[in-house]
Amino acid sequence: MRQELNVIKIGGNILDDPEQLSAFLAAFAALPGNAVLVHGGGKIATAIGTRLGIEARYHDGRRITDAATLELVTMVYGGLVNKQLVARLQAIGVNAIGLSGADGNLVRAERRPVKEIDYGYVGDMPPGGVSVETLRLLIHGGLTPVVAPLSHDGTGGMLNTNADTIAQEIAGAAARDWEVRLVYCFEKRGVLRDANDDDSVISSITSRDFAALLAQKIIHAGMIPKLRNALDAIDRGVRRVVIGSAAELPGLVAGNKGTQIQ
Amino acid sequence: MRQELNVIKIGGNILDDPEQLSAFLAAFAALPGNAVLVHGGGKIATAIGTRLGIEARYHDGRRITDAATLELVTMVYGGLVNKQLVARLQAIGVNAIGLSGADGNLVRAERRPVKEIDYGYVGDMPPGGVSVETLRLLIHGGLTPVVAPLSHDGTGGMLNTNADTIAQEIAGAAARDWEVRLVYCFEKRGVLRDANDDDSVISSITSRDFAALLAQKIIHAGMIPKLRNALDAIDRGVRRVVIGSAAELPGLVAGNKGTQIQ
Repeated sequence: MRQELNVIKIGGNILDDPEQLSAFLAAFAALPGNAVLVHGGGKIATAIGTRLGIEARYHDGRRITDAATLELVTMVYGGLVNKQLVARLQAIGVNAIGLSGADGNLVRAERRPVKEIDYGYVGDMPPGGVSVETLRLLIHGGLTPVVAPLSHDGTGGMLNTNADTIAQEIAGAAARDWEVRLVYCFEKRGVLRDANDDDSVISSITSRDFAALLAQKIIHAGMIPKLRNALDAIDRGVRRVVIGSAAELPGLVAGNKGTQIQ
Repeated sequence: MRQELNVIKIGGNILDDPEQLSAFLAAFAALPGNAVLVHGGGKIATAIGTRLGIEARYHDGRRITDAATLELVTMVYGGLVNKQLVARLQAIGVNAIGLSGADGNLVRAERRPVKEIDYGYVGDMPPGGVSVETLRLLIHGGLTPVVAPLSHDGTGGMLNTNADTIAQEIAGAAARDWEVRLVYCFEKRGVLRDANDDDSVISSITSRDFAALLAQKIIHAGMIPKLRNALDAIDRGVRRVVIGSAAELPGLVAGNKGTQIQ
């Protein structure tokens, strides 16, 4: 029987809230089995960028990463946010190790081709971009990887890469060795049947349900790519994808909170 | 027969010079056997700190690290400098992995006690502060650790820690498992007999020579603590300490350049 691995992605909202973050880290430390934590940090980068005179620019909700912004996110994601998370996990008994995609060649990507928009130093992930060897070495060695949303291009440069994508690719690659549960923490308690009712969490979605929910227009704009990514992960061998609130982490992992996708 | 391990420390002067840095990284990649790279980054931190309105303050040549400065060095050493080095090494065939002292509990330190001066979030290293287990796991796993001058305090905080000290402590801890050569790269070609003559490199110093050189006042102020640290490392089982120029790395390791201390 293969071992379980939880790949858990947290976003900026929880990183910005000290009390929520402490509770989340304690719950993360208490999870059974092995885990990988993937974090964002966009709000902190934007705040420090403002102090450095680096303006945050977006196109269709995606950050445009010029050379100054790449330095900024390399510092903030790979240094400040990552090391603070690792130090705090070490203090509560988790032998965490912080990584960017360059470290141990964990996440290699390709710079997004310039079409109408030049997104700059943004990495898209080709198949096979995650080093399963590095994951194996670290996890079998008793370490808990804490991964910043940065990849490298293999020719000496870093690339800014979406944290959801990195979490999905790590989960997909790890599915060769482990029974993987991929948990996306976001600001809601799960996928909602009614966007205005936080208690209307849909407890379970299969790919068949997804088509029906789409047809019924119950799933709205922002959630569609998240669910497509989740179903892609299932197709790649991830055992289960869960979408929910970081405040309910134990329940998300136990299968009785959030939206369970399989 | 035990394997060789080169622990190599580079300072800010080489990080600031793109041509020198490229040449150094190529020479580092070509070294035989295993290696650990320890880097500084003080000048880059000072430059980014100035843009953030964080003033660099020193006492007796040591940076005073208040909370804002700790965030700055965590970003710059642990993020910007570390990840750029790792990405560049990956591009030339070195499976580098960047680490702060928090990562894998590699370097644990204690906050320096406040006496006349409060140095702030600065870590001094107790004996046993380096995790040999983490070094073993990574190096035996084929990875090359690239270590930022940051430690952690075990209670969730990062600490700013001198890169020379971290290199020495890693070398001392690794001496249990490996035949360790500790190489300090600095701006001179070695310990000079005449501070005004760059060709007056003393090729070899033993602890007996050191006492004589001190008595003859050939060794001057700044070099005394460097040599004491080097001799301490020898006492702890490091096979050889070398002080010299990063531009002569192959010779420093081969034993025919710089000052060889044993």
